[in-house]
Amino acid sequence: MFFASDNASGVPPEVMAALNRANDGYARSYGADDIMARVTARLRALFEAPEAQVHLVATGTAANALALASLTPPWGAIFCHRHAHIAEDECGAPEFFTNGAKLVLIDGAHGKITPAALTEALATTGASGVHGVQRGALSLTNVTEAGTTYTPAEIATLTAIAKSHGLPCHLDGARFANALVATGATPAEMTWQAGIDALSFGGTKNGLLGVEAVILFDPAKSWELELRRKRGGHLFSKHRFLSAQMEAYLEDDLWLRLASHANAMGQRLAAGIAALNSAALTHPCDANMVFANWEQGGHARLQGAGAVYYDLRPKDGRETARMVASWNTTDDHVDRFLARLKG
Amino acid sequence: MFFASDNASGVPPEVMAALNRANDGYARSYGADDIMARVTARLRALFEAPEAQVHLVATGTAANALALASLTPPWGAIFCHRHAHIAEDECGAPEFFTNGAKLVLIDGAHGKITPAALTEALATTGASGVHGVQRGALSLTNVTEAGTTYTPAEIATLTAIAKSHGLPCHLDGARFANALVATGATPAEMTWQAGIDALSFGGTKNGLLGVEAVILFDPAKSWELELRRKRGGHLFSKHRFLSAQMEAYLEDDLWLRLASHANAMGQRLAAGIAALNSAALTHPCDANMVFANWEQGGHARLQGAGAVYYDLRPKDGRETARMVASWNTTDDHVDRFLARLKG
Amino acid sequence: MFFASDNASGVPPEVMAALNRANDGYARSYGADDIMARVTARLRALFEAPEAQVHLVATGTAANALALASLTPPWGAIFCHRHAHIAEDECGAPEFFTNGAKLVLIDGAHGKITPAALTEALATTGASGVHGVQRGALSLTNVTEAGTTYTPAEIATLTAIAKSHGLPCHLDGARFANALVATGATPAEMTWQAGIDALSFGGTKNGLLGVEAVILFDPAKSWELELRRKRGGHLFSKHRFLSAQMEAYLEDDLWLRLASHANAMGQRLAAGIAALNSAALTHPCDANMVFANWEQGGHARLQGAGAVYYDLRPKDGRETARMVASWNTTDDHVDRFLARLKG
Amino acid sequence: MFFASDNASGVPPEVMAALNRANDGYARSYGADDIMARVTARLRALFEAPEAQVHLVATGTAANALALASLTPPWGAIFCHRHAHIAEDECGAPEFFTNGAKLVLIDGAHGKITPAALTEALATTGASGVHGVQRGALSLTNVTEAGTTYTPAEIATLTAIAKSHGLPCHLDGARFANALVATGATPAEMTWQAGIDALSFGGTKNGLLGVEAVILFDPAKSWELELRRKRGGHLFSKHRFLSAQMEAYLEDDLWLRLASHANAMGQRLAAGIAALNSAALTHPCDANMVFANWEQGGHARLQGAGAVYYDLRPKDGRETARMVASWNTTDDHVDRFLARLKG
Repeated sequence: MFFASDNASGVPPEVMAALNRANDGYARSYGADDIMARVTARLRALFEAPEAQVHLVATGTAANALALASLTPPWGAIFCHRHAHIAEDECGAPEFFTNGAKLVLIDGAHGKITPAALTEALATTGASGVHGVQRGALSLTNVTEAGTTYTPAEIATLTAIAKSHGLPCHLDGARFANALVATGATPAEMTWQAGIDALSFGGTKNGLLGVEAVILFDPAKSWELELRRKRGGHLFSKHRFLSAQMEAYLEDDLWLRLASHANAMGQRLAAGIAALNSAALTHPCDANMVFANWEQGGHARLQGAGAVYYDLRPKDGRETARMVASWNTTDDHVDRFLARLKG
Repeated sequence: MFFASDNASGVPPEVMAALNRANDGYARSYGADDIMARVTARLRALFEAPEAQVHLVATGTAANALALASLTPPWGAIFCHRHAHIAEDECGAPEFFTNGAKLVLIDGAHGKITPAALTEALATTGASGVHGVQRGALSLTNVTEAGTTYTPAEIATLTAIAKSHGLPCHLDGARFANALVATGATPAEMTWQAGIDALSFGGTKNGLLGVEAVILFDPAKSWELELRRKRGGHLFSKHRFLSAQMEAYLEDDLWLRLASHANAMGQRLAAGIAALNSAALTHPCDANMVFANWEQGGHARLQGAGAVYYDLRPKDGRETARMVASWNTTDDHVDRFLARLKG
Repeated sequence: MFFASDNASGVPPEVMAALNRANDGYARSYGADDIMARVTARLRALFEAPEAQVHLVATGTAANALALASLTPPWGAIFCHRHAHIAEDECGAPEFFTNGAKLVLIDGAHGKITPAALTEALATTGASGVHGVQRGALSLTNVTEAGTTYTPAEIATLTAIAKSHGLPCHLDGARFANALVATGATPAEMTWQAGIDALSFGGTKNGLLGVEAVILFDPAKSWELELRRKRGGHLFSKHRFLSAQMEAYLEDDLWLRLASHANAMGQRLAAGIAALNSAALTHPCDANMVFANWEQGGHARLQGAGAVYYDLRPKDGRETARMVASWNTTDDHVDRFLARLKG
Repeated sequence: MFFASDNASGVPPEVMAALNRANDGYARSYGADDIMARVTARLRALFEAPEAQVHLVATGTAANALALASLTPPWGAIFCHRHAHIAEDECGAPEFFTNGAKLVLIDGAHGKITPAALTEALATTGASGVHGVQRGALSLTNVTEAGTTYTPAEIATLTAIAKSHGLPCHLDGARFANALVATGATPAEMTWQAGIDALSFGGTKNGLLGVEAVILFDPAKSWELELRRKRGGHLFSKHRFLSAQMEAYLEDDLWLRLASHANAMGQRLAAGIAALNSAALTHPCDANMVFANWEQGGHARLQGAGAVYYDLRPKDGRETARMVASWNTTDDHVDRFLARLKG
C-alpha cells in the first residue's frame, strides 16, 4: 500500500537488462555513445520531428531548469501555474539556471491554467517597459500537479495566447507518458503540433532509475543547451547508462505500457474512493494521481495498516491526501487501501 | 587498446549486482533510503571522521562545483593549478555555481602547485581591499591532471599556507582511490588530517556508473550544500540507485582493488614507454595516467591498429599523448600497445 | 501641474550649493572622503544607532537589491507586497543581486501587508524541506506603493511574525522622510526599534540628484555589502559628490522640511478630490501620493491643460490616476489641477 | 602634489554650471530627458556613427560590466590583459554581470596585448568542445593600465584576430580622451573603424562627477543593455543630471582640452623623472600616467612634503610608484614634485 510517489518504485526488468547489456566493453563518453544515436533517432520518429534535438539528464529538475534557461533571458517572466513543480518543488532551480528569471504564478482550478487567467497575467506583466521584467516563456505541466490533464487542444489554446506575445512554450512532462495514455494523443499532437517548443520528457517517475530527456523541437537552441548541461554538471561521462535506460523505455512501447498500468491503478483507486460516502475526490483523476478528503479516522486506520501516502494541509475540517499509483502498483494494493479507508 | 579515459570503461559485476538488489520494492526517495544511511556510516568510519557529512551526486563536475560554492563567496578567488579540471574541463561550472567566483591559475610542473607559487598567488590576490576579489578557497587535485600525486605532507604544506589566510581547502578526488593506492596514505591522512575541508570523492572513473560523494569534514555547511544540490538539479528522487553503487564500491575494499589494478596497468605502460629510445615520458607516472612523446610514425602505427588515446598539442616537433589505464585494462592491452609503439 | 513622479523634480538650492562646496580641491575616493565620515556620524545620531553602518549608492533599486542580497541567500524567499517596488519596478534586480531568490507576493488592501496574510504566506513557504525555497527575509515599504503608511507599531507586528521564523527584515524607504512626517515617528522608532535590520533610506525622490543610503543596523553584514556594492558597479570613485548631497539633505532638517511640504501638497490635492462628486480617492492619502478615479472627461480636460500624471489601468468603467506631489509642488499647481478636474 | 589618481580631482566649472542649468523645472525621468537626446546626437556625430546607441551610467565598472555582459554569454571567455581593470579592480563585476564568464588573462609588456599572445590564448581556449568555456569576447583598454596607448592600427590588428574567431570586441575607454589626444586618432578611427563593437566612454576620470557612456556601434544589443542597466540598478531616475554632465563634457571640445592638459602634465613629470640619474621610468608615458622606480630616500622626501601617489610593490630593491596627472594638475605641482624627488 505504497502510494507516496511514483518515484519510490524501482524499475522494471527490461530496464535493468538494458543496463547490463550497455555495460559491455568500452563506449565513447559524454553522449557520443552509439546507444544515444539510436535514442535520438527513435524519439525523432516517435515525435514525427526529424529536426528535434535530444539531451539526456538524470533529474526532472535539471530537465526543466535547463530547458527554461534556454528559452528565457534572466529578465524574463515564466508564466506557470501557482502549484507547478518548477514553482514549488525545485528549490529555485529555474531562478538559478536562468540567472534570476521571475516565475509569475497563475491560479486555476485543479492545477490547470485557463485561457482567461493567462491572458490576464500577460496583460499585467511586461507592460511597464524597462521597469519590469519582460514576458519570457510559458511553462505548462501535463499531467498537472493536481493529477488532471490538458488535451492537445487545451494546450494549443494556451500556447497560441503566449505566442501572440512572442513567447516560447515549455511542457514539463515528468508524467508525459501518463498524459498521453490519459488523453489518447500522439506525442506530436501533445507537443510541437500544439505549440510546444521544448519538452521535459520524463522517464524516472514511470520506471527508469533516473533519466529525463530535454527535447527541443527547434534545434537552434541545442548547442546552448549542451553548454548549459555541461556547466550545470549534468553531462554524464558514462552517458551510455542514461542512453540505455531510455532505449529500453521506448522499446516495444514499454513506456506506454507502464503508464497505462499506473493510470489504471490510479483510476481504480479513484473510483473506489468516489463510491464511498465517507470520502470525496478533491480533483478529477485523469491519470495516476488521486487527491481526496476523508475524516480523521480514515487516516488512522490506513496509517495503522502501513499505508503510505501524502497527508497534505487540513482543509475544512477534513484532510487532503495524495496517492500516486505506479507502474508496479497492483490491484491488491488498491483494494486493501480501499478496504482500510472504508473501515 | 582503449586508453582514452577511465570513464570509457563500464562497471564491475559487483556494482551491477548491487543495483539489482537495490531495485527490490519501494524505497524512500531523495536520499532518505536505508542504503544511504549505511553509506554515510561506512564513509565516516573509513575517513575516521564521525561528524563528516556525505552527499551523493552523479558527476564530478557537480561534486566540485557544489563543494566550491559552499566554501567560497561570489567575490572569492579560488586558487588552483592552471590545468585543474575545474579550470579547464567544466565549462565554467565553478563560476556558475558560485555566482561568479574567480579562478586564480597557478603554474607548476607536472600538474602540482608548489608552496612558493601558492604563496606568491596569495600575496598578489586579495590585497587591494574592496577593489579586487577576496581570497576564497584553495582547490587541489589528487591524482593531478598530469598523473602525478601529492603526498599527505605536500597537501598539508599547501593547506597550511592557505589557512594562514583563513581559506578553506577543497580536494578534487576524481581519482582519489588511485592517489591513496599510489601514496599508501589512509583516507584521513590524505584529507582532514592534511587540512582538507571538503572532498570530491570520485567513484565514476574507478568503476561506478556515475556517483561521486561530496564529503564535508566540517558539518556546518551541510544544509547549505543540500539546498545547493537540490537547486542545482542534482538531488536524485530514486537516490537508492546512487547509494547502492557507493555501497558496493566500498564493500570489501572494491574501490582500492580497482584502483590498484588501474595503477599497476598505468605503470606497466609507463615503464614500457620509458624503456624505448623512440619515446619519452613527459610527466612521472604515479598512478594510472601516462603522458608521453613520440615521433609521428608511432601515432600512425598505433591508431592504425585501433589504439585509442588522446593526441594532445604538438610540442617541439613531437606529439604528446595521454593514456589512461582503467580498472578493466589488461596486461595484454598494455603489451600490444607497447609493441605497436615500438614498431 | 506636474504630478507624474517626485523623481521628475530637480533639487533644492541647498543641495546644489553643497555639490559646489564639495568640488573644491582633492578628496580621497571610493568612500574615504571626509564628508562621508560626517554623514555616517550624523545618520547614527539621527537613528540613535551608534553601530549602524552606512553605504551610499545612487539609485533606490541598487539600495534595495544590495540590502536584500546581504540578508537573503540565493535559495531564500523574500516576502513582500504584491505591488512592492522590488516586485514590479526593478526589472528583477533583487533576483539578479541575490542570485535567484524568489519573491513571495502577498496581497493586501491599500498596499499594506496584514499580519494574517504574512502568517499565511510564511506557513506555506519554506515548509517542504529541501524541495522548496527557504524563508529568507521580509521586505516592507513605507510609504507604500499605494501612498499609505505603516505606523511603527504595525511594522513591529509584522517584523515580530517574521522574526518568529528567524527572518531579517528590510524596509524600502524610498519615501522614508514622507513616512516619518506622516506618522510622527522618529527614525529609530520606524526602523530598528520596530525590528528593521536594513533600511533603504531614500534621498532622490525627496530632493537629491541621486543618492540613497543603505543603513545596516547590524554591522555584521557591512563588509559583505561593501563587496557587493563594488562588484555591482555601485561604488563611486568621486564619492564625495554623493556624501555632499546626503550631508546637505540632513542639515537643518532639510529632508524633513522637504517631505513635510510634499505631504502637505499631496493632502491638499487629496482633500480637493475627495470633495468632488465626480471623483473618488481609491486609497487613503497618508503622504504625498494620491490615487483617484474619475470619469473620462476629467482626463481630457486635465491633459488638454498640460497636467502630467499616471493614467493607470481602467477599472469599473472609470480610470485610476496616480498623482505624486513633490518638494517643489506649489499650492497653485494643486489648485489649478483641481479646477480643471472639476471642469 | 596630488597624483594618487585622476579620480581624486573634482570637476571643472563648465560641468558644475551645466548641472545648475539642468536643475531648472521638471524633466522626464529614466533617460527620456531632452538633454539625453542631444547627447546621443552629439556622440553619434563625434563618432561618425549614426546608428550607435548610447547608455549613460555613473561608474566605469558598471559601463564595462554591462557592455561585456551584452557581448558574452555566461560560458564565454573574455580575453584581456592580465592587469586590465576588469581583471584586477572591479571585484569580479564582469563575472557577476555575465553570470560567470571567465577572464582569460594575457601577459604583455607595458600593459599591452601582442598579436602573438592573443593568437596563442585563442588557440588554447575554446578548443575542447563542450568541456571548456567558449571564446566570448576581446576586451582592450586604452589608455592601458600601464599608461601606454594602442594606436588604431594596433587595435585593428588585435580585433581582426578576435573576429577571425567570431568574437565581438570591447574597449575600456576609462581614459579614452587621453588616448585620443596621445595618438591623434579620431573617435571613429579608435573604435568602430578599428573593429570595436562596444566602448566604455569614460568621463569621470577626466572631469565629470560620475558619468560614463556605453556606446554600442551595433544597435542590436541596445534593448538588452537597457534591461541589464535597469536590473543592475544603474538606470537613474533623475537621469538629466547624468546627461547634463555629458553634454558639458562634449561642448566646445572640453573633454579633449581637459585630456590634453592632463597628458601634458603627465609628460612633463615623466620627462623630469627620465632626466634624473636617481630614478627611472618603468613604462613609457604615452598619456597622463607615470610609472617609475627610485630609491627609498625619494619616497621619504616626497611623502614628507605631502606628495600623494601610489607606492606599488617593491621590485629589485627599488620601489615602483604610480603618479596620475589630472585635468587640474599644474606645472607647479609637477615641478615641486620633481624638486623633492631630486633631493
